[in-house]
Amino acid sequence: MQQALDYAQAHHEAFVGHLEDLLRIPSISTDDAYAADVQRAANWLVDYLTSIGIAHVEAVPTAGHPIVFAEHTVDESRPTLLIYGHYDVQPPDPLELWDTPPFEPTRKNGTLYGRGTCDDKGQLMMPVNAAASYLASGEALPVNLKFIIEGEEECGSSHLVPFIEAWKDRLDADVVLICDTSMFAPGVPSITYGLRGLAYVEVTLTGPNRDLHSGTYGGAVHNPASALATLLAGLHDENHHITVPGFYDNVRLLTEDERETFRQLPFDAEAWKAAIGLKDARTEAGYSIREAISARPTCEVNGLWSGYTGVGAKTVLPSKASAKISCRLVPDQTPHEITDKLRQYFEENTPSTMQLTFRDLHGGHGVIVDTSHPAMQAAAEAMEAVYGKTPFFTREGGSIPVVADFKRLLGLDSVLMGFGLNSDAIHSPNEHFGLDRYREGTEAIIRFMKRYAS
Amino acid sequence: MQQALDYAQAHHEAFVGHLEDLLRIPSISTDDAYAADVQRAANWLVDYLTSIGIAHVEAVPTAGHPIVFAEHTVDESRPTLLIYGHYDVQPPDPLELWDTPPFEPTRKNGTLYGRGTCDDKGQLMMPVNAAASYLASGEALPVNLKFIIEGEEECGSSHLVPFIEAWKDRLDADVVLICDTSMFAPGVPSITYGLRGLAYVEVTLTGPNRDLHSGTYGGAVHNPASALATLLAGLHDENHHITVPGFYDNVRLLTEDERETFRQLPFDAEAWKAAIGLKDARTEAGYSIREAISARPTCEVNGLWSGYTGVGAKTVLPSKASAKISCRLVPDQTPHEITDKLRQYFEENTPSTMQLTFRDLHGGHGVIVDTSHPAMQAAAEAMEAVYGKTPFFTREGGSIPVVADFKRLLGLDSVLMGFGLNSDAIHSPNEHFGLDRYREGTEAIIRFMKRYAS
Repeated sequence: MQQALDYAQAHHEAFVGHLEDLLRIPSISTDDAYAADVQRAANWLVDYLTSIGIAHVEAVPTAGHPIVFAEHTVDESRPTLLIYGHYDVQPPDPLELWDTPPFEPTRKNGTLYGRGTCDDKGQLMMPVNAAASYLASGEALPVNLKFIIEGEEECGSSHLVPFIEAWKDRLDADVVLICDTSMFAPGVPSITYGLRGLAYVEVTLTGPNRDLHSGTYGGAVHNPASALATLLAGLHDENHHITVPGFYDNVRLLTEDERETFRQLPFDAEAWKAAIGLKDARTEAGYSIREAISARPTCEVNGLWSGYTGVGAKTVLPSKASAKISCRLVPDQTPHEITDKLRQYFEENTPSTMQLTFRDLHGGHGVIVDTSHPAMQAAAEAMEAVYGKTPFFTREGGSIPVVADFKRLLGLDSVLMGFGLNSDAIHSPNEHFGLDRYREGTEAIIRFMKRYAS
Repeated sequence: MQQALDYAQAHHEAFVGHLEDLLRIPSISTDDAYAADVQRAANWLVDYLTSIGIAHVEAVPTAGHPIVFAEHTVDESRPTLLIYGHYDVQPPDPLELWDTPPFEPTRKNGTLYGRGTCDDKGQLMMPVNAAASYLASGEALPVNLKFIIEGEEECGSSHLVPFIEAWKDRLDADVVLICDTSMFAPGVPSITYGLRGLAYVEVTLTGPNRDLHSGTYGGAVHNPASALATLLAGLHDENHHITVPGFYDNVRLLTEDERETFRQLPFDAEAWKAAIGLKDARTEAGYSIREAISARPTCEVNGLWSGYTGVGAKTVLPSKASAKISCRLVPDQTPHEITDKLRQYFEENTPSTMQLTFRDLHGGHGVIVDTSHPAMQAAAEAMEAVYGKTPFFTREGGSIPVVADFKRLLGLDSVLMGFGLNSDAIHSPNEHFGLDRYREGTEAIIRFMKRYAS
């Protein structure tokens, strides 16, 4: 293993350069205008994985964006690691809040800025670097490798499950490795064993058939923005509980052991609030901040628009009002169930003055992985070797629906070795990733491959 | 008078052509990007009024858009008519809903389509046509004329009052004529004696200092879009009464006579709803549609925005949420009073998790004119001569704050001869104006000038 570690150490600068090449491609999967760039990012990965010596690499076309599949078998008797990542990124809006161009990676004091530096291009390149280090240093890879790198994670992964189903036989492996989560805090290594799911919908209320003059019509026309406000306000009660009927029916409650671990986490609520400029936190009554952001479900307005939103005053009574709404789910809620309950809430509460349009945008299951799994233990040991501390097993609030899909479709557990930080501003302006963590992640995965194989 | 009427009849086509020239200038006053076009529209009016023989014409600069002032004295012993109109227009958004380009006037079956065809370029040109008809036909103008044509009516008229104050002596007149309102219905002439005022504000709630990942943070961060929805939902109770404390304190109640006139108006509620595609009307409990849209105050959301409003799904927890809100006022509410009460409502109800920004965009007073005024009676007779029917005296829901300003600053009553129709889609896509009404309006004003002078 030492040869591979030495190689990674010596080639850190080159690994950063390759990542920068990938970051320059604006692979925004949710916006059709960037389809060619998404394809370009897939092609880049095919070329790069081939160049480091992965035996078989291809970009598999789908009805949406391609999935990069790669395979490298060293020895049938060794365990096989299925590595998942995604090469697509979130849109960069609002553009005006970026200090540097989102698709021109920029280094400042050991930090790399740009869309995708952390989520997930920076992290997906760490297992690639680990493989390259074994392959180039002449040291035998301790495991067989398979890669699934998709281009639709940020827009619902709608072609991933069909791909896994169709390629089931080819995807045979022992465990999945995913680098797309966060460390608990700088210098506090952690391994994620729980993730939230997602149900994402868009609702539109339509009143009059066109925007009206608010003077001529105002007073007898129910305003869609007001009507929508009432429906959105009604989603939570004064304890910040979600009021959608049946919403909590299938929520697996935190065990006393889990709550105890939550209490032990070195979490500074004041620093957490200060970092995001928050005057006051607001959690569901009865839960701590850490619990609320990772182990309890939510219902958030992600976007809201109606009427005139330009400069100055326009006295319009809008025809429509729309909201994007998503719920973070915990086991054993399912996206289908929650989407249905949301639909029912909106259908039952839409006033007679309004027409409701309800769209299911996408969803994913939450998951909890058994922390006693051998790969989880190997990951913990690898992290400890890099950081000199036993990592915490934690739950994260984000969603990686594929974790549940791998379990359901392939029977595989996933090890989530994450090197992001909550302060990395993923999905936000000025996303960034520490180059130290890029190096540590690569080292940890080199170590993990070796430990897991033995 | 017959010579002027004949001239107008013979030159209708030319009058339409001149209007089209003015309509081609996108004089959108609320958006600084169009400042040069607003200036261009003012210049066009100066040139045109000069060309028809108005003795003195000038574009008076202001700190905002210029005010076109014109003056034509025939004989000091005759009454003087002060004609007010506005040459600026509303923004055309949403552009994609226009069937023809908003600034390329297009005739279809006797109707002229384009932004400003009705509000107010089409209507302001009718008294101009009437003056041109007297001046060109050789028939003596029965009245002296003054014109104030402003370029900021759609963005708050902030420089009009200072202008009236500064030019007070020059604006001496007997009555004001304004063509910027609507007829009650096609073929049902009416004269507006009441208008609503306006208080327009913008509120922003800020929670976290940047847009956050809804998975990583969702659950412990109060969502500004949800918080704003709660505040907006709270503006009305279940009877559609406005809940802002003290909101109704100064509302002058409808008299029994007025309510009786409302009942007599030939109003077809089903047709009204059908025309705007409304499933159900919603009025303040206890008031009819006609009363609610003209003689009762309102509180409307004109615009609403937060978070991600683009294509597809973005799992963002927004930093901010904003709304444009305006109240239509009735005498004796004042914009200052209502803006203060709105501010207090938002200040008192903003939760501790949020920072409130409250901006007063602009306001205007409502007004009620005495229907027994000689000019009101002359206008009624002129309308009757054109339409063969006694016009109704009605109240309108829109705001022309200058009517209250003329009364307050110059002691002048205003006669509102309106030829718009509620179906003309002012402030909306596909605004239009009937060329028959353009002709009738010109004729009515020629007749009004004569009757009022005698």
